[in-house]
Amino acid sequence: MSRTESAAALVTALDVLDVRFPTSEHLDGSDAMNPEPDYSAAYVVLRTDAGDGLEGHALAFTTGRGNDAQAAAIATLAPHVVGRSVAEVCDDLGGFARSLVHDPQLRWLGPEKGAIHMATGAVVNAAWDLAAKRAGRPVWRFLAEMTPEQLVAQVDFRWLSDALTPEDALEILRRAEPGREERVARLLESGYPAYTTTPGWLGYSDEKLARLAREAVADGFTQIKLKVGADLADDVRRMRTARETVGPDIRIAVDANQRWDVGPAIEWMRALAPYDPYWIEEPTSPDDILGHAAVRRALRPIKVATGEHIANRVVFKQLLQAEAVDIVQIDSARVGGVNENIAILLLAAKFGVPVCPHAGGVGLCEMVQHLSMFDYVAVTGTVEDRVIEYVDHLHEHFVDPVRVTGGRYLAPSVPGLGAQMHPDSLKDYAFPDGPVWSGRV
Amino acid sequence: MSRTESAAALVTALDVLDVRFPTSEHLDGSDAMNPEPDYSAAYVVLRTDAGDGLEGHALAFTTGRGNDAQAAAIATLAPHVVGRSVAEVCDDLGGFARSLVHDPQLRWLGPEKGAIHMATGAVVNAAWDLAAKRAGRPVWRFLAEMTPEQLVAQVDFRWLSDALTPEDALEILRRAEPGREERVARLLESGYPAYTTTPGWLGYSDEKLARLAREAVADGFTQIKLKVGADLADDVRRMRTARETVGPDIRIAVDANQRWDVGPAIEWMRALAPYDPYWIEEPTSPDDILGHAAVRRALRPIKVATGEHIANRVVFKQLLQAEAVDIVQIDSARVGGVNENIAILLLAAKFGVPVCPHAGGVGLCEMVQHLSMFDYVAVTGTVEDRVIEYVDHLHEHFVDPVRVTGGRYLAPSVPGLGAQMHPDSLKDYAFPDGPVWSGRV
Repeated sequence: MSRTESAAALVTALDVLDVRFPTSEHLDGSDAMNPEPDYSAAYVVLRTDAGDGLEGHALAFTTGRGNDAQAAAIATLAPHVVGRSVAEVCDDLGGFARSLVHDPQLRWLGPEKGAIHMATGAVVNAAWDLAAKRAGRPVWRFLAEMTPEQLVAQVDFRWLSDALTPEDALEILRRAEPGREERVARLLESGYPAYTTTPGWLGYSDEKLARLAREAVADGFTQIKLKVGADLADDVRRMRTARETVGPDIRIAVDANQRWDVGPAIEWMRALAPYDPYWIEEPTSPDDILGHAAVRRALRPIKVATGEHIANRVVFKQLLQAEAVDIVQIDSARVGGVNENIAILLLAAKFGVPVCPHAGGVGLCEMVQHLSMFDYVAVTGTVEDRVIEYVDHLHEHFVDPVRVTGGRYLAPSVPGLGAQMHPDSLKDYAFPDGPVWSGRV
Repeated sequence: MSRTESAAALVTALDVLDVRFPTSEHLDGSDAMNPEPDYSAAYVVLRTDAGDGLEGHALAFTTGRGNDAQAAAIATLAPHVVGRSVAEVCDDLGGFARSLVHDPQLRWLGPEKGAIHMATGAVVNAAWDLAAKRAGRPVWRFLAEMTPEQLVAQVDFRWLSDALTPEDALEILRRAEPGREERVARLLESGYPAYTTTPGWLGYSDEKLARLAREAVADGFTQIKLKVGADLADDVRRMRTARETVGPDIRIAVDANQRWDVGPAIEWMRALAPYDPYWIEEPTSPDDILGHAAVRRALRPIKVATGEHIANRVVFKQLLQAEAVDIVQIDSARVGGVNENIAILLLAAKFGVPVCPHAGGVGLCEMVQHLSMFDYVAVTGTVEDRVIEYVDHLHEHFVDPVRVTGGRYLAPSVPGLGAQMHPDSLKDYAFPDGPVWSGRV
């Protein structure tokens, strides 16, 4: 494709598909607040008339009901994309992201939170997928090849300047410039550390928990995670089972999925403390910055982690300012896309807090690995105390599924963001008319 | 209607209408972040087979684009309502509200924020409208006739217990029981204090500002409000004009609609300080609890107000815990309906902070007056330093429009919540096919 063709090409369509997987039938993915999720995707395809066969694919993840409303929210963004020059969008992804976020009418539905913000994230991520494919790079390398100045231009600093300025960001990124290539080589060779949630779902028997925990350790994982918060006696028994199974050297994180008020979070965790939990994830409301800070103060040295439901960079900023978290858990599909996640990575780096992404769901592992690998190469330069969540669900539906082996994510090499699904999966699991659902609903 | 009939009656439909007013054509409602709003309603009608002719009406307010996505979010709640017993819903509005909020799949789109939470608010408010109509009472009196125990049962205390327990709430409500009847009588006689935003929109000339400010004072208002945040020199001039027009005894609030970062908010307001602004509203991100606290510390004695974009009770809780606000601005259509607003009124009462509701938009004045009047009768027992915002827009579309006279809201007497619109308005402004829009889009 010549320069001229590229400049002339337009985005011609924003397709939105409602795709759902009936995961609730097997209790995979069950936790204290999500007893019966049907993992779903409000799936986005950006099409162009460039004639190069490239499309931008991404998705917003939901847990079933409401996936149609999420799709409707995405569709409202079409006027910001369709008809725009492909080059204009792909060459200024920061400006593109800001144009969506700052729509003066749509922002009433947020601002920058809930369905409309997840919609922005899906469309922005689809643009990154397209831009990286055009560049022939997986997103993590596409990012890692940008200059510090280009990276700073991706970030919307609105509401951040009391904690992170463009100058701060530039300094962080420049500090990490030496050694970028060496770190790229190391990722290509040995990947990025992972932990697994597979053993720990609430719906599993103790036997299944122990068996899966044993397998996880045998597979090379050095950290596993258990869902907690439904029943204290059960949790004590499950935590003891897990600890006895894996021994003292494997980290066991626990995850309450927002189940508790502040006081009960502290009490419950004290009962689990004898089994050495590494972190408590989502002890309470994701909006409760001061609550997380109180839980952290009371439970130290147990770490506090949160992020998969944190609406935007302003809440992450405060979690860091208030010293409310030990671990920042970014999510690829909750906030306003790659751009806002760059802001959050920079905030975490500024405050010296490690980022351990949330993943699982549908395509979240595929997408978020790019952000952690970029963080390692170009932001923090380290993987110390950093792990990406891994859940062995639904990867078979992706064109370029994650490869996790020996407890590590192997660096993706296929151009794009990794969220592209097989056409058959999109068709079979289309809701409510695809063949998988037509007998069910 | 006999008890038996009532018990047997079912909710038969949840209708959702997309209704928009082309307000952007006149710059009414323009501010620093909302330059061209088309005030809109995702309008809800609950219908039943009770045969009594009663329906539950309410709405989610938006500013135009996205009203369809808001409507789609409301429609996802239909399975929680349609087919349920009318008596069951209306006799346990607290349980009903919780059943919507805690849908384990829909909550992924929030939790309790953005489009899905505003959807909950609209449906819950429609149920209150229906329940109050069945009781033959305007909602403020319907509430004011409940016992403290019945009121406590309306509240979802999840995530509040570190600041407000059911026992705290009961104590506040019991303390206000003596004198309820006297306060009802006083409201019926002389209404509730209002302030007006009509003079202060950014699109208005200085002459129009001065004329409208003069008229506001002549009409009996003792507080007006100016939009600020687009241009500092303009704001200084407009603020000086307003102060010179109304003299030293009229309160002038200013409203930045989230325009600033923390540092700039402080600097900008220092430039306006010589003209004695009463409060600064939405100086920064509605999610920035710590930012509001920093602004408040720096600007004292100028008061800090926020709330129209505060997603839920957990954020209000923290604004109060962090001493970040002097004024709590509830909104009838942002959070999870009457129930969550009762929680917020109780939190504000616990912390001794006055509530001055946000209103305007479409139907917000009509709905929110009930909450302030209830607050006066049964929660705080005072109107000191409390005013309800009044904007003279679009009231003609309502069956029972607010009556503001002498700078006061007269107590509504028609049963229900007040959000019911004329059938002709619903038809004429239907988007995109109603006659008002068919020529425009």
